[in-house]
Amino acid sequence: MNTLRQPILNELDRYQQLFRQTLTHEDDFLGQALSHVASRQGKMMRPVLLLLVAKEFGPVSDVSVRAAVTLELLHTASLVHDDVVDNSAERRGQPAEHTLFGNKVAILVGDYMLSSALHQAALTGDMRIVDIIARLGGTLAEGEVRQLADIRQAVATEAAYFNIIRHKTAALFEACGRLGAISAGAPEPMVQTAALLGETIGTCFQIRDDIFDYFEDDAQRIGKPTASDMRDGKVTLPALYAASVDTTGEAAKLAAFVLQRSASDADVMRLVELTKQHGGIDYARDTMETYRRRARRLLDDFSNSEVRSALAAYVDFTIDRDR
Amino acid sequence: MNTLRQPILNELDRYQQLFRQTLTHEDDFLGQALSHVASRQGKMMRPVLLLLVAKEFGPVSDVSVRAAVTLELLHTASLVHDDVVDNSAERRGQPAEHTLFGNKVAILVGDYMLSSALHQAALTGDMRIVDIIARLGGTLAEGEVRQLADIRQAVATEAAYFNIIRHKTAALFEACGRLGAISAGAPEPMVQTAALLGETIGTCFQIRDDIFDYFEDDAQRIGKPTASDMRDGKVTLPALYAASVDTTGEAAKLAAFVLQRSASDADVMRLVELTKQHGGIDYARDTMETYRRRARRLLDDFSNSEVRSALAAYVDFTIDRDR
Repeated sequence: MNTLRQPILNELDRYQQLFRQTLTHEDDFLGQALSHVASRQGKMMRPVLLLLVAKEFGPVSDVSVRAAVTLELLHTASLVHDDVVDNSAERRGQPAEHTLFGNKVAILVGDYMLSSALHQAALTGDMRIVDIIARLGGTLAEGEVRQLADIRQAVATEAAYFNIIRHKTAALFEACGRLGAISAGAPEPMVQTAALLGETIGTCFQIRDDIFDYFEDDAQRIGKPTASDMRDGKVTLPALYAASVDTTGEAAKLAAFVLQRSASDADVMRLVELTKQHGGIDYARDTMETYRRRARRLLDDFSNSEVRSALAAYVDFTIDRDR
Repeated sequence: MNTLRQPILNELDRYQQLFRQTLTHEDDFLGQALSHVASRQGKMMRPVLLLLVAKEFGPVSDVSVRAAVTLELLHTASLVHDDVVDNSAERRGQPAEHTLFGNKVAILVGDYMLSSALHQAALTGDMRIVDIIARLGGTLAEGEVRQLADIRQAVATEAAYFNIIRHKTAALFEACGRLGAISAGAPEPMVQTAALLGETIGTCFQIRDDIFDYFEDDAQRIGKPTASDMRDGKVTLPALYAASVDTTGEAAKLAAFVLQRSASDADVMRLVELTKQHGGIDYARDTMETYRRRARRLLDDFSNSEVRSALAAYVDFTIDRDR
């Protein structure tokens, strides 16, 4: 983690200062509710990516720092709402916003942050940045709605899985790449390279996250119960693969139970076991390796060697991390 | 209502076409959820005001029409969320979004619409419009949070009441005036006049709405049970006045019960009765008359006589309407 932040330590300080500033409010109650969100910053994966990409094109401007704040505000707002929608009590090992302040306040705090994201985007003075943020907000909401609809209709295919990943995670990382390049005045071909790099990283990020869910130790370390996705009616890549190759049909049957929310604890545990037996985890890891190779090819277009090494470390961290 | 729409019939058609277009979506489920919102357009008070103001400055441009769509999307998104937060089953006499689709979908549909609002704002190409919309989104969320906090702390003063009105209703109408003028390229003094006119109208709009709540027939006509505000823990201007002048202290005691959510049905009905006895309704009506006079003075600055008459009819409708 330290390697990949090295080139932008100063920029991350500027980022954190502005991020915290946007989450203060004179109103006591709203101020408290916002400061809980601000206190829970996590690994700052998205701002780091955006600022690294910006650094490729010269000294990092205030516009790039503000773009990072804008994106993280939007991301955090959508997490606050997702936790209400998914009824998740915790986030990053700490109580979710709605756990402490109730669903009502969490909905409104999310709205407030979404508006702050757009206000910050407007302050960059760059309409392309505003438009990226507005579209991204729509994409994230679409992704969650689609996931609800898929759960309702008990749809589970690899195509549906990648569609949701694209909406919920890859779109955010793609925006990091795009915003990093645009905010730094990069030429259009490099904007596209950076966007594709972000999308590639984001896809890996989500697949890696989904794999955690199959291992008890991993799940504990990231602060979730094992197989919590399945308990929420979500079937991810490893189990989808197992369901498609298990010729007895048992894995497919259990996956259908999960989607219909009728799976017992024993069903879930059996599906986890079958997934491992049928090589579902290996399949998901192989998929990430394909993306790792694509990401490395994209990195050849970056000319600042310090940035390129940091981005390579970023890609490796995304795929190899243990939390 | 027809008088005040007369000068902008064609513009309203353009508005409706674009509004409906922004609420279609290829995804079946999201498309359905959005079309329910689109089907429930109401009186279009805010777009009418914005377009009338724009008309003062010449032929109404596509930017003004888009600004009206932007504002109505933001307004509608915040209503969808407010209905979840306030647990209101109906809106404009029809089922609320969350009543048909559940709280989860309603939260996400609201987010999607909020993002669409900002995307439409970006499409105007005018950063001032983006900024107004982003700030307004924040103000609306602040207003709802403040109302929740006031209910929690059992605060009820005229100052707190007007503060909430300003955040929740007047800010929206103020933005109509401001956006109407800015989108039409009005000079700065007229932008200020239009904004103040909007704020004045918005304040009356909310006071009139609050008065409905004290009369059984009115409440039925607008599709709410009588005294539904009080049942939700809200004490509005008429009862606040009664509480301040009833020397026996009974009205003040009952108002405190309402705020603490401990008022019985009989308590609520008694407070409605006391409010009328102590002239609370008359006081609220007198307050609106003060605002009507201010609005008329502001209208003197408008030079297009057709627009001026329509705006005068708009002010009168806001104050004198029976639904």
